[in-house]
Amino acid sequence: MGMEIVCFDLEGVFVPEIWINVAERTGIPELRLTTRDISDYDQLMTYRLAILEKEKIGIKDVQDVIAAMKPLPGALEFLTWARSNFQVIILSDTFYEFASPLMNQLGQPVLFCHNLITDNRGMISGYALRMPSQKKNAVKALKALNFAVFAAGDSYNDTAMLLESDHGILFNPPQKVIDEFPTLPVSKTYDELKQSLIAVSSRPLV
Amino acid sequence: MGMEIVCFDLEGVFVPEIWINVAERTGIPELRLTTRDISDYDQLMTYRLAILEKEKIGIKDVQDVIAAMKPLPGALEFLTWARSNFQVIILSDTFYEFASPLMNQLGQPVLFCHNLITDNRGMISGYALRMPSQKKNAVKALKALNFAVFAAGDSYNDTAMLLESDHGILFNPPQKVIDEFPTLPVSKTYDELKQSLIAVSSRPLV
Repeated sequence: MGMEIVCFDLEGVFVPEIWINVAERTGIPELRLTTRDISDYDQLMTYRLAILEKEKIGIKDVQDVIAAMKPLPGALEFLTWARSNFQVIILSDTFYEFASPLMNQLGQPVLFCHNLITDNRGMISGYALRMPSQKKNAVKALKALNFAVFAAGDSYNDTAMLLESDHGILFNPPQKVIDEFPTLPVSKTYDELKQSLIAVSSRPLV
Repeated sequence: MGMEIVCFDLEGVFVPEIWINVAERTGIPELRLTTRDISDYDQLMTYRLAILEKEKIGIKDVQDVIAAMKPLPGALEFLTWARSNFQVIILSDTFYEFASPLMNQLGQPVLFCHNLITDNRGMISGYALRMPSQKKNAVKALKALNFAVFAAGDSYNDTAMLLESDHGILFNPPQKVIDEFPTLPVSKTYDELKQSLIAVSSRPLV
């Protein structure tokens, strides 16, 4: 362990895309869109919540879907390795109300994300972003606390965090993100990501 | 889970005082002094390292002592509760080289601390503070990331962090710290600390 932190995105890195799972289980294909498709997050969320309202899908329905999800194969093993060699913080634009059962399965890592707002019908009436650009701002704050900060994520909403960090890595991203950010190195598997982190650490790791 | 972080001190909260254990196992009573006794941290560390050098006690000897230590009774259960209800970051003025085996036993929580410097004889030749006032500065940074930040610690080097946080709690502190900081609430047991955290959270917790 040392003065090195790794910030990881959650969906697409350790767990499947939550909204894609919700789309599949509810049979509503419009819910499949993610930040991979619409880069403006508020536009995407407003769209999602309008669909949930129209289809009368409440927070409990979404939570039931998420409770049946599992981390990606190999995710827990990789994350356990990372946490025994670095300080690890997960930076996600999901919501604590969604992420909680997945965090249990991942060994309760620290998660910085947002909150949902529900009304008295149990419908998701809105969301409370903890702050704009929270991923990038978290990396900046951790650097100001004199940590070396590495970061990995797969999506548009990760690129600011990756570019702000001391070494940002695209993990298994879609081709169009690779094309738009050609300076960012790419890891396609946990083993490649592990080797990249070992290479950038100032300490001898295995 | 929500936009609430709890920052905990390590020694005296989750694990015994490391240096007191080193003093006992090595039979060198001068190593018993802690921040409870000498509030100036640099003065305390310089004193400790001079004794280790004089007595020819290397980093491996100290690590062997620490490897035999256990968390305080009930610590893991309390910390596990805290991590499933809050984001948790441990803020300690110990060193990653010392803390690693204790972090394994505590389920690998996130730890912000410092690094030791060793020479080619395996002696501890110095230490690298990650930054001055790291506990207080971490709380300030987390508040600036729009988290509500609660904190608990037992010692002089915790009081700035406790006063900076949205709700700081002295955990099982010596009487002289209580006397010098009469505005800080005191919890004497994990159960009292748990009830205090439940009371200050904006969410319904159990």
